[in-house]
Amino acid sequence: MSTATTTDLYEVTMALSYLAEGMTEPATFDLFVRDLPDDRGFLVAAGLEPALDYLSGFRVTREDVEAFAAVLHRPAAELEPLLGLEFTGEVRAVPEGRIVLAGEPLLEVTAPLPQAQLVETYLLNLVSHQTMIASKAARCVLAADGRPVVDFSLRRTQGTQAGMQAARLGALVGFAGTSNVAAAVAYGLAASGTMAHSYVEVFASEEAAFRAFARSHPGPVTLLVDTYDTEQGLATAARVLRELGLGEGCAVRLDSGDLAALARRARRILDDAGLPMVRIVASGGLDEYAVDDLVGARAPIDVFAVGTRVGVSADAPYLDSAYKLVAYRGQPVMKLSSAKVTTPGPKQVFRRPGYADVIALRDEPPPPDGEPLLLPAMVDGRRVDGPSPVADARERFTADLAGLPPAARRIHHPVPPHAVFSEALTALTGRVRHHIEDDVVGTHRRPAPGEFVPGPPRGRRPEGGAP
Amino acid sequence: MSTATTTDLYEVTMALSYLAEGMTEPATFDLFVRDLPDDRGFLVAAGLEPALDYLSGFRVTREDVEAFAAVLHRPAAELEPLLGLEFTGEVRAVPEGRIVLAGEPLLEVTAPLPQAQLVETYLLNLVSHQTMIASKAARCVLAADGRPVVDFSLRRTQGTQAGMQAARLGALVGFAGTSNVAAAVAYGLAASGTMAHSYVEVFASEEAAFRAFARSHPGPVTLLVDTYDTEQGLATAARVLRELGLGEGCAVRLDSGDLAALARRARRILDDAGLPMVRIVASGGLDEYAVDDLVGARAPIDVFAVGTRVGVSADAPYLDSAYKLVAYRGQPVMKLSSAKVTTPGPKQVFRRPGYADVIALRDEPPPPDGEPLLLPAMVDGRRVDGPSPVADARERFTADLAGLPPAARRIHHPVPPHAVFSEALTALTGRVRHHIEDDVVGTHRRPAPGEFVPGPPRGRRPEGGAP
Repeated sequence: MSTATTTDLYEVTMALSYLAEGMTEPATFDLFVRDLPDDRGFLVAAGLEPALDYLSGFRVTREDVEAFAAVLHRPAAELEPLLGLEFTGEVRAVPEGRIVLAGEPLLEVTAPLPQAQLVETYLLNLVSHQTMIASKAARCVLAADGRPVVDFSLRRTQGTQAGMQAARLGALVGFAGTSNVAAAVAYGLAASGTMAHSYVEVFASEEAAFRAFARSHPGPVTLLVDTYDTEQGLATAARVLRELGLGEGCAVRLDSGDLAALARRARRILDDAGLPMVRIVASGGLDEYAVDDLVGARAPIDVFAVGTRVGVSADAPYLDSAYKLVAYRGQPVMKLSSAKVTTPGPKQVFRRPGYADVIALRDEPPPPDGEPLLLPAMVDGRRVDGPSPVADARERFTADLAGLPPAARRIHHPVPPHAVFSEALTALTGRVRHHIEDDVVGTHRRPAPGEFVPGPPRGRRPEGGAP
Repeated sequence: MSTATTTDLYEVTMALSYLAEGMTEPATFDLFVRDLPDDRGFLVAAGLEPALDYLSGFRVTREDVEAFAAVLHRPAAELEPLLGLEFTGEVRAVPEGRIVLAGEPLLEVTAPLPQAQLVETYLLNLVSHQTMIASKAARCVLAADGRPVVDFSLRRTQGTQAGMQAARLGALVGFAGTSNVAAAVAYGLAASGTMAHSYVEVFASEEAAFRAFARSHPGPVTLLVDTYDTEQGLATAARVLRELGLGEGCAVRLDSGDLAALARRARRILDDAGLPMVRIVASGGLDEYAVDDLVGARAPIDVFAVGTRVGVSADAPYLDSAYKLVAYRGQPVMKLSSAKVTTPGPKQVFRRPGYADVIALRDEPPPPDGEPLLLPAMVDGRRVDGPSPVADARERFTADLAGLPPAARRIHHPVPPHAVFSEALTALTGRVRHHIEDDVVGTHRRPAPGEFVPGPPRGRRPEGGAP
């Protein structure tokens, strides 16, 4: 089976119905995050590169058709219309690494309706998950305030694939390395890590363990000092490093206890031993909150290793994302029910100074100080540019971060900037709502294309998306 | 590269050092969850099947050696000792689907030290993640109180691999189906789902959409009724179903709003239309808490579709799991630092009536009413049995659930049963602690095998693991 089967069944039943009804004209879907989680002042766009890979390779195979038929309990012949279906559409997207706000489309897909529908689940998964993790990791970089941060999350991410992504997304926002070997190779990152408590435990003493490690790993080492008694472990590490003539590039790692107090003690012991160049690495349940506390307490920690809580975005393990139909056959479309009203029509997002972003209709003239965020990524099912390396995304993130208002950068209770809708988008939203309320819901009839008569704007703000 | 590179770098540096030092005697590691998250009364063991697949296929290839060399910036020749390394050890494990408690080993690996170390990261990832999701899903089954639950999580799990697992783990605890086509095929599950709001939006009216769907999907359909106005959607659905002579096996789906109130309204509209057999499916941000509320309010909902919050275990997105060395060369080993003290020695867990479990030494005689939970899963690097199907795990879960104390089954503020340590394990823990405190930490020297002199038990409870 291909990745085309990694989808919700309803994408398949809908696509089949569209094909049966001859409804293959272009549809536009917006992928966006409705609201930010608590304690998020911004999002970092991510997941676009794997999304483009997925779309480029999308093709419903014979085996996929048989899989669809099997789960629907229908003859394969009835699923035949899906065979060979590829993605031939257009994608406009915010490049990875750019900072985005609630309600701003991260991705806009325009393709024949069955195609645009079939790719929904997979795209939502990739972009939501990866944007969430990049945004969490970005906060660690902010909290570390210039000190290196490394990713130690692989052992407790939600699956190993998520562990690969956590490493990549950390790098995307400026992490200095990862413990994950496969990710380091795949994405060209620095790999980091040396010994576990179990290593120390199998030797007759900490000293024997430290010496053995240095024997088999010539060059700088990082020694884990808290297997038994941390103070004693520090003293032993200092002695071994001195006796072996090591220092430059070496470190000790603290993985438990009162990290601020132990780091101060470690610094003193190392300095007193004439090892001011030996660095202190802290790990063990760290996230941006803990890093912020440690930096605030001026703990002399040189490197922060963050793991589990960052790799799963523990305080916000999902984003309120949506992939919403906004146009079909050139007509704007929206949903009215409950609080999840959507805004109709293909869009553009203009970044203005101070993050006074405007979510506008695609063809509106840009505001004089506005930079468009959505750029062409695929045309006719082909990528516009080659793969964008992680380093480029990191540059985009660094540049965007420089202009982000301080209130949005805060670790505790950040205040996210709010995008506003352009006048034209607000007016269109009102007209489409009016049309649906009066004609579709009222009479169960939608006028044919051309027959559409825009009503006056209602002047009421849409409820969903950005306020 | 093989899965051997999907690991933390330190597993590689440690394994290399062990090989250099000739330390290849058998080591035993316990994989367990230290403490349960809030609002968990029990865990459901899961991840063993993929873990055994991983271990069976484990082999360090030439390409892996080159990857290790690259990230360590060392010549490949120095990594050569790892080439061809396979897993030749023993695994004893709790079968998937069994209910387990904090501190109870889920898996015990005994293998030559470098092997047992190299597999740590991957095993921790699989078993922690999957046990967490199975445990969350089990609570949904409890909350639904006999009503079917289906998995809709794929679009927002942490990667698509996690989505595959969410479907499998839901089935493992009794979910009736999944929206995930690939998972339905891979694990032989029922696939579920029909239409999205976007489907309704591209037709001229809800009625046109419902009719088109029924046209292209002969047989029972599920109609989504909340795209515009839910009351009106329900009336339209009832009319269309009647006019098409449909009813048995059909359903309406509510995805937003006050689900309890709308379900009551839906039931009345459907009953009044002579459609008492049409079922009501609820979805939209559901988890065990929401399902519990709806069941408590006697909302006439027939099927609960749970998604995001279950697929990421939103209220507890990671488990406090550990993979700890407990023996090397037949000698018990433990860690003392901070609050994370471990208990030494290979173990067995005895399940006693009412979940009065005992964590014991492996070779202790079982208590008269005790059933051993850890069973042989691999010997000499080969699986003892063939793959265990999901259905067998579900049977084990159902049987264990029947005996679980009511307080542990509660959705809000459950009280987990606590395992106790056997007298022999408590005594050994005291002796090893005494030995480490007096000899290893005190003198930086561990006696040679045979020289080990057990001291008197300290009578102090270990701090980590089960209380």
